[in-house]
Amino acid sequence: MSVTAAQGFSAAGIAAGIKANGNPDLALVVNHGPRLSAAGVFTSNRVKAAPVHWSEQVLRGGTVSAVVLNSGGANACTGPRGFQDTHATAEKVAAVLGGEHNAGEIAVASTGLIGVLLPMDKLLPGIETAADALSADGGEDAAVAIKTTDTVHKTATVSHAAGWTVGGMAKGAGMLAPGLATMLVVLTTDADLDSATLDKALRDATRTTFDRVDSDGCMSTNDTVLLLASGACGTAPAYDEFAEAVRTVCDDLARQLIGDAEGASKDIRIEVVNAASEDDAVEVGRSIARNNLLKCAIHGEDPNWGRVLSAIGTTKAAFDPDRLNVAINGIWVCKNGSVGEDRDLVSMKGREVRITADLATGSESAVIWANDLTADYVHENSAYSS
Amino acid sequence: MSVTAAQGFSAAGIAAGIKANGNPDLALVVNHGPRLSAAGVFTSNRVKAAPVHWSEQVLRGGTVSAVVLNSGGANACTGPRGFQDTHATAEKVAAVLGGEHNAGEIAVASTGLIGVLLPMDKLLPGIETAADALSADGGEDAAVAIKTTDTVHKTATVSHAAGWTVGGMAKGAGMLAPGLATMLVVLTTDADLDSATLDKALRDATRTTFDRVDSDGCMSTNDTVLLLASGACGTAPAYDEFAEAVRTVCDDLARQLIGDAEGASKDIRIEVVNAASEDDAVEVGRSIARNNLLKCAIHGEDPNWGRVLSAIGTTKAAFDPDRLNVAINGIWVCKNGSVGEDRDLVSMKGREVRITADLATGSESAVIWANDLTADYVHENSAYSS
Repeated sequence: MSVTAAQGFSAAGIAAGIKANGNPDLALVVNHGPRLSAAGVFTSNRVKAAPVHWSEQVLRGGTVSAVVLNSGGANACTGPRGFQDTHATAEKVAAVLGGEHNAGEIAVASTGLIGVLLPMDKLLPGIETAADALSADGGEDAAVAIKTTDTVHKTATVSHAAGWTVGGMAKGAGMLAPGLATMLVVLTTDADLDSATLDKALRDATRTTFDRVDSDGCMSTNDTVLLLASGACGTAPAYDEFAEAVRTVCDDLARQLIGDAEGASKDIRIEVVNAASEDDAVEVGRSIARNNLLKCAIHGEDPNWGRVLSAIGTTKAAFDPDRLNVAINGIWVCKNGSVGEDRDLVSMKGREVRITADLATGSESAVIWANDLTADYVHENSAYSS
Repeated sequence: MSVTAAQGFSAAGIAAGIKANGNPDLALVVNHGPRLSAAGVFTSNRVKAAPVHWSEQVLRGGTVSAVVLNSGGANACTGPRGFQDTHATAEKVAAVLGGEHNAGEIAVASTGLIGVLLPMDKLLPGIETAADALSADGGEDAAVAIKTTDTVHKTATVSHAAGWTVGGMAKGAGMLAPGLATMLVVLTTDADLDSATLDKALRDATRTTFDRVDSDGCMSTNDTVLLLASGACGTAPAYDEFAEAVRTVCDDLARQLIGDAEGASKDIRIEVVNAASEDDAVEVGRSIARNNLLKCAIHGEDPNWGRVLSAIGTTKAAFDPDRLNVAINGIWVCKNGSVGEDRDLVSMKGREVRITADLATGSESAVIWANDLTADYVHENSAYSS
C-alpha cells in the first residue's frame, strides 16, 4: 500500500540502470491533489548531499507535486556538478509530467555511495520510464526501488475511521543514527491539511521515532523524510488524531529500519527512566546505543552491565553513580551502581534485547533503538566501496 | 627496563591466582627515595572504579611510596565492599613493606572485568609474594603482570645525558578512548622534582598522547597514569627537558597501545590541519576516529573518503563543507568537498593508514590515533564476559 494507500497519489518504481546489478533504482511519487501541501525534515549533518540542498529549498515553499528518488548513488560530495544534476532531474520530472508541474515543486532524494556523480544518461531516460509506469497501485514498486542494502522493502499504513489515511515507505540499512539515519522516507496522506500542520505533525513524529534510531552511530549526508498531503478525501482531521497517525506510521517504519540494519542480529531497545530531563534520558540512551563494547557483548548474548555503566559515565546527565540501576531483559543485574540480581537469570536468545537504565534522579524517560555489532556488519561495510 | 630504568625503584610481577589461567596478575612498584613525589591523572568517566577513588585521594597528598596493580578484575561497580577491598590492599602493602610506609601513600590500580569483586584471599597473600620478589630489575615482570588482553607487554625509557631517566610501563587493549583509555600506566624518574612539577609535566604529556588515543570510542572506569620521582640521581632537570622526556615516553607507550589494540589490523593516524582552534581539530579527529563505517572501510583497505566527510559533518567545528580536503596516505582523494585525486592511487596495504583532514579555516592542528573495526574485535568482545 505504501505511498499509494492514501487517495490522490500515484507511484512507480523501475530499473533505470543506475545500479550495476540491474535492480530497481528509481522511484517516482506524484501528488494529484487537489492539495499539494508538504513538509520535510532533513539530515542535520553539515555535509549535505545535493538533493538535500535542493529539496530543503523546495520544501520552504510548502508545495510538492512530485518526489523523485534514486538508489545506487547518493550524489553527495559531488560539487557544483552534483547540484546541477539534481536540478536537471527535477526539471526532467516536471517536463515529463507536464501540465502544472514545475521543477521548483519537485523534491529529489538520492541514496547510495558518497562522492560519485550519478549516471545522468541513465537516470533521465529512467524518469520517462517511471512516468509511464505511474499507477495508483505503484506504492510497493516505489518502496522496492529505493532499497540499497535493505533486505526487504518497508511500508506502513494507518487508516482512520473518518476516511483518511497516512501511508509511507522507507529505506535504510547502515549509517543509521539520529538526525536522521541513512533513510529516505516518503509519507502521504489524503487528509485536507496545510503545510504548516503537516510540518508540525512531521516534526513531532520524527523527534521520537526516526531521530531515536541509532543503529551504528553514523549520520548520513542524505536523510530525507517527506510528508505530502493530497486532500483527496476531503476531510481535515483533528490535529491530535492526525499527529498520532503520522507518529504511528513513523514508529512502524523506524522499527522496520532497525529490524533490517546491516549485519545486525539483535534489536536493542534502550529505555532510560527516572532522568532529570528528557534531554538527559536521550543523551544517556545514545551513549549506551553507541558503545561498541556493549554492542559486541549483546551480540554475544552477554549481559555485560558494566559496559552499560561505563557508557552512562561518559555523559553529562544528572545522576549519582551509586544509585544507578540497570536491567537487561527485565533482570536488574545492577542495583545501586553495583552487583544486583544474578546475571545468569538473563536470557538473551531472542532478536529483541531490552536494556533499562534507571538514573534514579527524576521522572523523565526516553527510548532509543539500536543494533548489536557483528562480524557481518564489519564484513558488509569493509567490502570495497559498499 | 620499564619502571626500574630510573634509579631508586624496585618492582615485581607475580601470579597471585587472580586470573583463572594462572598468568601473572599482580605488580608492585616501590619508590625507595630519597624523594617520594608523585602525580597522577585518572579516567574522566563519572563511573569510577574503587581503586581510582582511592588513588585520586592518595595523589592529592603528592606523595606515593608504592603502587600495587592487579589485572584479572577491575574492582569497578563493586559498591562499598569494593572500596574496602582497595583499602585493605593498600594496608597490606604498607604492612608488608614496613618501615615508613603507610597506606595513605600507596596507590592502587586494577584492570579487568567490571562488576566482580576481587578474590582477596588470593590477592592479599600475593602481595607478600610480590614484596619478596622486589628487584631493581623487576620492571619487565611488573609490565607483564598488568596485561589483560594485551598480546605484548609495553615499556619505554628515555635517558638524558645529564644522568636522569624517565621510564614506564603500560597496559591497554580494548576500551581505548580519550579521557583516558583502558590503560594503567606507571612512569618513574630519578630526577629530583617536586609533585607540582611532576603534575604539570604529566598533564602536558597526557593531553597530547594518551588522551588522543581513540581505539574504539569506549571510555574506561579504571584509567590511571602515575608518575613517581625518587630523586635518586640527585639532578633537577630544566622543566622543558623533563617535560619533553615524559612526553616522549607517553607518546611511545600510547603508540604501543594502539599497535596492540584488540582485534585491530590497522593503526590509523588522523591529522586534522588548518582548523580554527586546537579544540576544533581534536573534535573533528575524534569524530573521524569513532565512525564505525569508516573504521570498517579502512579494515577493507577502501579509501572511502565520503565517510570521512560525513563524520566531519557531525561536528560543531568551524568549516565550509565546500572547502574540505581529505588525503588518505598522501593522496588528496577529496578536494573542495568533492571528488579529488583518483582513489585508485591510494595504497592501504600497510598497518599504518594516514588520514589528513584539511578544514581550510585556520592554522591549528591535532593528531588522533585510532584503529580499524574488525571481525576479530567483534569476536574478542562478544565472547562471554571477556
